[in-house]
Amino acid sequence: MARERHRLTVVSNRGPIQYARMDGERVALRGGGGLVSALRGLIGNHDVTWIVCAISEEDHLVAAEQNGRALEETDAIGNPFKLHFADPDPADFAAMYGHIANPLLWFIQHGLYASGEEPVVSTDIREAWAGYRRYNAAVATETAMERDCDALMIHDYQLYLVPAMLREAGVTSPILHFTHIPWPAPEAWKQLPVDLRTELLHGLLGSDIVGFHTEHDVRNFLATCATYLPGVEVAAGDARVRVIVDHEARDVHVRSYPISIDPAELRAHMRTPEMIAAHTELLRTRPEKLILRVDRTDPSKNILRGFHAYGRLLDRRPDLHGRVQLLSLLDPSRLAVPVYANYLKRINAIAAEINEKHGTDGWLPIDVRIGDNFPVVVAAYREYDALLVNSIADGMNLISKEAPLLNERSGVVVLSENAGSFEELEPWVLAVDPLDVEQTAAQLERALELPQPERGERAAAIRAFVEAHDVARWIDLQLLDLEFLAEPRA
Amino acid sequence: MARERHRLTVVSNRGPIQYARMDGERVALRGGGGLVSALRGLIGNHDVTWIVCAISEEDHLVAAEQNGRALEETDAIGNPFKLHFADPDPADFAAMYGHIANPLLWFIQHGLYASGEEPVVSTDIREAWAGYRRYNAAVATETAMERDCDALMIHDYQLYLVPAMLREAGVTSPILHFTHIPWPAPEAWKQLPVDLRTELLHGLLGSDIVGFHTEHDVRNFLATCATYLPGVEVAAGDARVRVIVDHEARDVHVRSYPISIDPAELRAHMRTPEMIAAHTELLRTRPEKLILRVDRTDPSKNILRGFHAYGRLLDRRPDLHGRVQLLSLLDPSRLAVPVYANYLKRINAIAAEINEKHGTDGWLPIDVRIGDNFPVVVAAYREYDALLVNSIADGMNLISKEAPLLNERSGVVVLSENAGSFEELEPWVLAVDPLDVEQTAAQLERALELPQPERGERAAAIRAFVEAHDVARWIDLQLLDLEFLAEPRA
Repeated sequence: MARERHRLTVVSNRGPIQYARMDGERVALRGGGGLVSALRGLIGNHDVTWIVCAISEEDHLVAAEQNGRALEETDAIGNPFKLHFADPDPADFAAMYGHIANPLLWFIQHGLYASGEEPVVSTDIREAWAGYRRYNAAVATETAMERDCDALMIHDYQLYLVPAMLREAGVTSPILHFTHIPWPAPEAWKQLPVDLRTELLHGLLGSDIVGFHTEHDVRNFLATCATYLPGVEVAAGDARVRVIVDHEARDVHVRSYPISIDPAELRAHMRTPEMIAAHTELLRTRPEKLILRVDRTDPSKNILRGFHAYGRLLDRRPDLHGRVQLLSLLDPSRLAVPVYANYLKRINAIAAEINEKHGTDGWLPIDVRIGDNFPVVVAAYREYDALLVNSIADGMNLISKEAPLLNERSGVVVLSENAGSFEELEPWVLAVDPLDVEQTAAQLERALELPQPERGERAAAIRAFVEAHDVARWIDLQLLDLEFLAEPRA
Repeated sequence: MARERHRLTVVSNRGPIQYARMDGERVALRGGGGLVSALRGLIGNHDVTWIVCAISEEDHLVAAEQNGRALEETDAIGNPFKLHFADPDPADFAAMYGHIANPLLWFIQHGLYASGEEPVVSTDIREAWAGYRRYNAAVATETAMERDCDALMIHDYQLYLVPAMLREAGVTSPILHFTHIPWPAPEAWKQLPVDLRTELLHGLLGSDIVGFHTEHDVRNFLATCATYLPGVEVAAGDARVRVIVDHEARDVHVRSYPISIDPAELRAHMRTPEMIAAHTELLRTRPEKLILRVDRTDPSKNILRGFHAYGRLLDRRPDLHGRVQLLSLLDPSRLAVPVYANYLKRINAIAAEINEKHGTDGWLPIDVRIGDNFPVVVAAYREYDALLVNSIADGMNLISKEAPLLNERSGVVVLSENAGSFEELEPWVLAVDPLDVEQTAAQLERALELPQPERGERAAAIRAFVEAHDVARWIDLQLLDLEFLAEPRA
C-alpha cells in the first residue's frame, strides 16, 4: 500500500491540543477522544496542518495571536504538526454544539426522537442553524488559508457545510468529508426541515469523497440524495452522486472506510504501572463471571435496556446470583444538555432498582462506575467473560474492537446489529436487536455458557481481524482514494 | 366501470353493528368509524358477508347463538347484509388492542417512538403478540366458513396475519388486505423484532393484493419486503412481490387505492335539524376569521405543535387578536391507553397556556371542545376560513376531503405533507412540514390572507377532485383488480 508522504489539511471541531493557563503559564493539554487517537497515525506519517476550533479561554488568546499563521506543535507522542485555530463567535459555537449538533443531528442520526413530541422546528432552531452555518463558515475561512496541500480531510457532523464552502472559496485540492455517526435512511431526514436538509446535503456534496464507517451508511446516504435532491443523479451501483452546476457535471464518490484502532498503542497501555495496579485490584474483586459494558452515558448507547436485560437474566437464572456481575464503566457525557443529564439519573435509578431487588450483603449485581478511568477500563477489557455493546445505533463503536484485542479469558462479544462494527464482526459475535430486551438476556446467557473451544475461536477471530484491519489501514484507504478517485480541478 | 354484483366477504375488527341490551331487549347499534362509512357502499351494491369481532357483552351472546351461521342484518340505511361474528378470547382481544395494535403497531407506523426509550421488546410483548396471533386465528376461522364468495377483503392492522391463515386453510377466492394506516420505510420496522416482523410480512403476503392509500405506502411496503425477506423477489417497477413456496411462485400485487368519502351522503347531513341549529349557533358566535381543526386526540395528529404554531401566529400578528379563533373539535381517543390519556391532558394544558397569554375578556383564542359532536363538525366545515391538518403521519385523513366539500367560504386547506391525502390534493393546498412550527404558523397566516380569486379556485378544485374520486371509486378499483389481477387457484 502506498505510504507516500502527503501534505494534508485535517479539519475537526476538537483537535489533539487544548491550551490552558496554569500558574500563569500557558500549557498544552494533549488528549482528545477517539477521533484524535485515530488520526494520530496521520501526524507520524504525513505533513499535517490541523484546523481546530478554539474552545478554551487560552485557545482564544492563541487564536488571536496566530494571525493567520499555523503554529508548530507536537502531539502526545512528540510528532510535529501544524496547528491552526478557527475562532468562531462563542454564541455560534454554543448554537452549533448545544442546539444543532447535539441533540438535533445526533438524535436524528441515531433514531432517538419520538416525532410525536420532538423535534419542534421553530424560529429557535433556525436561529441556531444560522449559528451552525456561521460556525462552519469560520472554520472554512481558516481552512481555506491552508489550501496548499495534497488533500483536505474534514471531520464529522459539526462540519457538514464546510466542503461546499471550501469549493465556493476556490479550494482546488481534493476534499474528503468523513461522518463518524450513522447516516440514517431518508425517512429520518424528514425530521429536519427541507431548507436545512437541502443545505446540509449540498454542504457535504462539496466534497470529492464522502466517507462513512459502513456500507449501510453509504447506501442510506445515496438514497437520501436520490430522495431529496431532484437535481442530482445518483448511481447507486457505482456509489457516485453526480452533481451538475452550471452545466458542468462532477462526481462525488461515497465510500465506506471502517475506522479501527492502533493495536500496538493499545497494548502498550497494559504495561503502565497504573494499568497493572488496576488489573491486580480487579483480579482481587472480580466475580466468577464478569459481564462488562463501557460507554459514554448517551441515550444511543441503550444502557437502560441493557440493565433490564441483565435483570431478566437474573430473574430466570437464580443459580447465577452471587456468581455474576455487570460492571458498567460509564463516562458521563454532555451533561449540559438536559436530556443527557436526565439520562444519567435514570441509569443510576434503574441500576439501584435491580441491585435492590437481587443484591445481597456480599453481592452487588450491577457495579456502576461513573467517570473516565482508563486504567480500570483496560483491566476490565482483559477480564470480561462477556462484553455487552447494545447500542440503538452507533457509527462504529471502537470498544467492540479494543476490548477483544486485550481480553485474556476468551470473552464473548454480545453486539448490537446496529453498531457499525457489526458489519465487520458479525461472524464472531452474538447478535442482539437492541430494542429486544428478552433476546439480549438470552444472548447474555448464551455468552456466559458458550463452551470452549468455540469461545476461544470466536475471540481469536476478532483479534486477528482487528490486527489486520487497523487504523493505519483506515487512513491509507482514504489517501489512496483521494489520490485515484478525486478528479483534478483547476 | 364494472358494477357487477359480487359476493364479498369483508373482515374487520369493528363492523357496522354492535349489539347492546336495553330495558331487557337486544338492540343493534349502528354506527362505527370511517371504515364502516366507507364500506357502506359495498353493502348497497353487493352481497356482503361481514366478519367482525364480538366486543360487547351482547355481541358475545349473539356470537354464541350464531352457531357458525351468519345473521341477516341491515345497515344504518336499511340495506341487507350478513353478519358473522368472530369471538376471540377477551384476553387475546385485550392483547391485540392494548398492546400490539395500539400502541405498538400504531406508533411504529406513524413514526411516534423515540427508540431511546421505547419500545422495550420483552417477554410481555411476545406474550401480547401470541394473543394477537390467537385473535387473528379466531377471526380467520370464522372467515374461512364464509369462503364461498367472489373475494375476501380483510381490513387493517389488527388483522395482518389473517391472509396467510386463510391461504393455509385452503381458501381459494382472491384475498385483498387493506392497511388504512401509513406503511413506513424499512428502517422503522427495525422497531419490531425480527421474528414478529417476518410473521407480520408473511401474514400479509398471504393476500393476492395488498392495498394501501398511497403510492408512498406501496413503495415502502415493497422496500420493506426487499429488505427483510431474502426469500422473496420484489419487482418494484411492477409493484409485485413474488413469493416462492414449495417451488411454486405466486405474485402478490401491491397497489394504492386512496380512500374517499360519499359526497351525497355527507351533503345530506347538512339538511338535518340538528345541523341547521348548530350552524345557526356558529354563525352567531364565529370570529371574523375562523381556523378549524377536527381530530381524534391522537399523538399522530400533532395537535400540540398545531397549537404552538397558532400561538406563534398570534405572537407576530397582534392585529389579528380578537378577530381570529382556532376552533378545535377533538374526539377523545383510546383513553384506556396511558399515552393517549396523557396526550389529552397536554392538549388542554397548552391550549390553556396560549389562552392565558393572549386571551381577553371578550376573546378566547383557542376554543377546545372535547367530544364527538357531528352537527358542530358539519357546521364548522361550512364556516372555516382555514382548515389545519398537520398530522405527523396519517393513512389518508378524510377530514381534508370532507371539510372542503361542504365549505362555503373558500376556506384554504393547510395540509401536512405526510397525510395520505397530500398525494392527491397537493396542487391546491398549502403544504406544511408537520414538525416545523414556524412554517406552519407562516402557512396559517398565508391561508388567512390569500386573496380571491385564488382561494376560490383552490377550494373549487379540491371539491371537484373529491366529487370525481369518491368512495364508490375506491371500492370499484379494488373489485376490478380482484377480478383481473388475482390469479385463480385450485
